[in-house]
Amino acid sequence: MPQVVRARGVFAFSSGNHAQAVALAARMHGIAAAILMPSDAPAVKIANTRAYGAEVILYDRTREDRDALGARLVDERRMTLIRPYDDPQVIAGQGTAGLEIAEQAAEAGITAAPVLTCCGGGGLSAGIALALADRAPGLKVQTTEPAGFDDMARSLAAGERLGNAAATGSICDAILTPRPGEITFPILQRLAGPGLVVTDAEALRAVALAFAHLRIVLEPGGAVALAAALFRPGLGDVVICTASGGNVDATVFAVALSDVA
Amino acid sequence: MPQVVRARGVFAFSSGNHAQAVALAARMHGIAAAILMPSDAPAVKIANTRAYGAEVILYDRTREDRDALGARLVDERRMTLIRPYDDPQVIAGQGTAGLEIAEQAAEAGITAAPVLTCCGGGGLSAGIALALADRAPGLKVQTTEPAGFDDMARSLAAGERLGNAAATGSICDAILTPRPGEITFPILQRLAGPGLVVTDAEALRAVALAFAHLRIVLEPGGAVALAAALFRPGLGDVVICTASGGNVDATVFAVALSDVA
Repeated sequence: MPQVVRARGVFAFSSGNHAQAVALAARMHGIAAAILMPSDAPAVKIANTRAYGAEVILYDRTREDRDALGARLVDERRMTLIRPYDDPQVIAGQGTAGLEIAEQAAEAGITAAPVLTCCGGGGLSAGIALALADRAPGLKVQTTEPAGFDDMARSLAAGERLGNAAATGSICDAILTPRPGEITFPILQRLAGPGLVVTDAEALRAVALAFAHLRIVLEPGGAVALAAALFRPGLGDVVICTASGGNVDATVFAVALSDVA
Repeated sequence: MPQVVRARGVFAFSSGNHAQAVALAARMHGIAAAILMPSDAPAVKIANTRAYGAEVILYDRTREDRDALGARLVDERRMTLIRPYDDPQVIAGQGTAGLEIAEQAAEAGITAAPVLTCCGGGGLSAGIALALADRAPGLKVQTTEPAGFDDMARSLAAGERLGNAAATGSICDAILTPRPGEITFPILQRLAGPGLVVTDAEALRAVALAFAHLRIVLEPGGAVALAAALFRPGLGDVVICTASGGNVDATVFAVALSDVA
């Protein structure tokens, strides 16, 4: 994110890993960061973002227009807006995960497999798809979303950007976005396979299995791709998936664990 | 463990990671594995070890003599015994963690620091100490143990191998060993600094903090070094510690998390 260096401050809206990445980058460059987060974001995300030294501004996801609010704040404060997914440099940065997937797949001798991604606005998915198209064309991205918030899957099927009926209502808060990105959608339309959808219960079960077998902490929204890999038959013998995001409140994690207790 | 290849089968006693490593190695070599585990081992460890295809034989840690029982089973079954720590090849294998520490410390420009290890019989600690003595002599191992089971710390202070008063009674089950190893103790006497001790509550707090900030799953016995790094002042500005072992039951993990909920 080279523009960070030139900015008086940076501003982002996101409830999750993007917010913390922006806050951390701003701190490393010694500039101010303000993050617009939905008021229903997990407490741990708000606390972690503040711990990186950023100002957190909360808004009501159901009643306030994030984009309008963000535009006004950027204007008033003269900060540089860093969008969570519809930004070529963010997509390029997230695409480094695709470079790693290509490298590790080559080491493992895997030349063809679906690559399931946890998908919100499509930044990570588009970045990975671009990297794989260049480095490992036999690996094909398939986005994974929570049921009821499968705007990308439906948009890919319809050939146009469609929105979701609701703004909230899934435990996978990290990847609840209103519609596919303007920049990310055409990339995924060109490079991705059909989108997958999992239930909240399947995402929680994947959180529990990642705890029990991988010994990593995943948030539900970061576990949907693993859930699809585990619970959707017919994907083939080799399935690659991203496990992306561990910003989970202890109470939610305990609910997931009660499954394996 | 080259002897595994020649064995008709392998046999180990351990409640934790060692048991699973032996079971996995045996499966990779297509030979039988039997593991002698204390009957109070966490259910997840017993289940995971069986999942690797090993036979699990339970014994009573307070009433039965593990060594005698093990010797009889080895004799009856003509298997090769793989000790959890008092084996030069096990120590060498665990010492590869020390090679990684030396490499990563060099990359980070760290030439002098204490290296806190989670210590049971001392295999991991001795292996790391040997590797560091060769590759990074400014990095010095200090063993960390649970209160009441600090046989290594007391033995290092006394200059002779001392045992613990009790066999059970700490949540750090992975590293409750009766006394320092015959092979490991002289290595640590020569190369390690004073041993550290933490309480079960501190270990649980470290489990919770690793969940909240590192997003990894640690068992209490695998978190004692992190606990010492966090809660023992005076170790210096740079402290390296091992986070070793994630075989924790969901119920114990939930107890640790109730701290940060």
